[in-house]
Amino acid sequence: MVGRGLAGRLAGLGHDVVVGTRVVEETRARTDPDAMGNPPYAEWEQANPAVRLVPFAEAGVHGELIVNATAGAGALPALEAAGAANLAGKVVVDVANPLDFSQGMPPSLSVCNTDSLGEQIQRAFPDARVVKTLNTMNAHVMVDPSRVPGRHTVFLAGEDAAAKETVKGLLREFGWPEEAIVDLGGIPAARGTEMYLPLWLSLYATLGGGDFNIQVVKA
Amino acid sequence: MVGRGLAGRLAGLGHDVVVGTRVVEETRARTDPDAMGNPPYAEWEQANPAVRLVPFAEAGVHGELIVNATAGAGALPALEAAGAANLAGKVVVDVANPLDFSQGMPPSLSVCNTDSLGEQIQRAFPDARVVKTLNTMNAHVMVDPSRVPGRHTVFLAGEDAAAKETVKGLLREFGWPEEAIVDLGGIPAARGTEMYLPLWLSLYATLGGGDFNIQVVKA
Repeated sequence: MVGRGLAGRLAGLGHDVVVGTRVVEETRARTDPDAMGNPPYAEWEQANPAVRLVPFAEAGVHGELIVNATAGAGALPALEAAGAANLAGKVVVDVANPLDFSQGMPPSLSVCNTDSLGEQIQRAFPDARVVKTLNTMNAHVMVDPSRVPGRHTVFLAGEDAAAKETVKGLLREFGWPEEAIVDLGGIPAARGTEMYLPLWLSLYATLGGGDFNIQVVKA
Repeated sequence: MVGRGLAGRLAGLGHDVVVGTRVVEETRARTDPDAMGNPPYAEWEQANPAVRLVPFAEAGVHGELIVNATAGAGALPALEAAGAANLAGKVVVDVANPLDFSQGMPPSLSVCNTDSLGEQIQRAFPDARVVKTLNTMNAHVMVDPSRVPGRHTVFLAGEDAAAKETVKGLLREFGWPEEAIVDLGGIPAARGTEMYLPLWLSLYATLGGGDFNIQVVKA
């Protein structure tokens, strides 16, 4: 859903967007909703004809900027399939959280505390310019911050200052005002934004839905 | 510092407060600042004569309500010394975070992801009524939320509804408005508030100080 939300919004803004998958015909052949009750991809594709579905490697070649919106555990294999050579020098926007549903609900994190998914991706693809962002809210708020009233915050972390400027530009296209964007520094700060997820999940349960965010308030 | 901040503020509000320690004379004999540069206890004690320093067990007997403001790793031994029988039936307010500085800065958490310090305390003292709160901000903001302008949030987690009401009363005494208090449910929600600490530490470094907090903003 996160990938679809970002792809649809980016296409709507006039970007040339493809979605990568393992086997295109398998993804397109699914007719049942997924485990979360989301409609099958084919249904979404019909409503979003501008977004082409292609194999991971083709998506790796196509993208000037790559978004990792896989489920956490699938991130490294998907990016490997996209091709390390295709990622080299490019901005890789990592919006994923390393959620582990294998022990049931609520999910735990498959990596945390002394490492993070953002760091794992940067280490696995040292020539990619990884920027962690948008992983602290649901897919709707990511691409339309006005769904939540008033001021609220989006975080950035990454080693490459120019890559972070590129990502800030995308965030502004989505509607994020400059003062909402908090740059936390290098990619190790991805730990904090990923480890916020258990609090997000508690708030989701408490508030009865995902259309919320946090605002950092400073003295 | 968290314990001193809470003890001083509670005494100022008219509560009868004691601070527990392992060996009173050793605590009082220290003359050097601690590792964080905080002045020795004796200096604070002179400025706060209403707050008596007593052995943990005496603090356990004295308190109608017990606050755990130890460093994370010291929590269970300190509460053990306070005495399980003394804690039985009482509200135990856990404001600590299980920070592990043994690998240097930034600290990691000594427990997280599938467990939390709050849950460990509740399991170790099943007859205590543990409430996790205030661990998502610095000691100054805890007891004086007006240090941070505008609206911002304090979380509660615990199994005992009446204990949470008691703690809400204390929070209101500190100046927290009703709408700032978000009850996240049972004690497992302590995981989320403790795992927020790495993001708090990133924000501390980014903002250049600890006088900040987060506000949950809902659609």
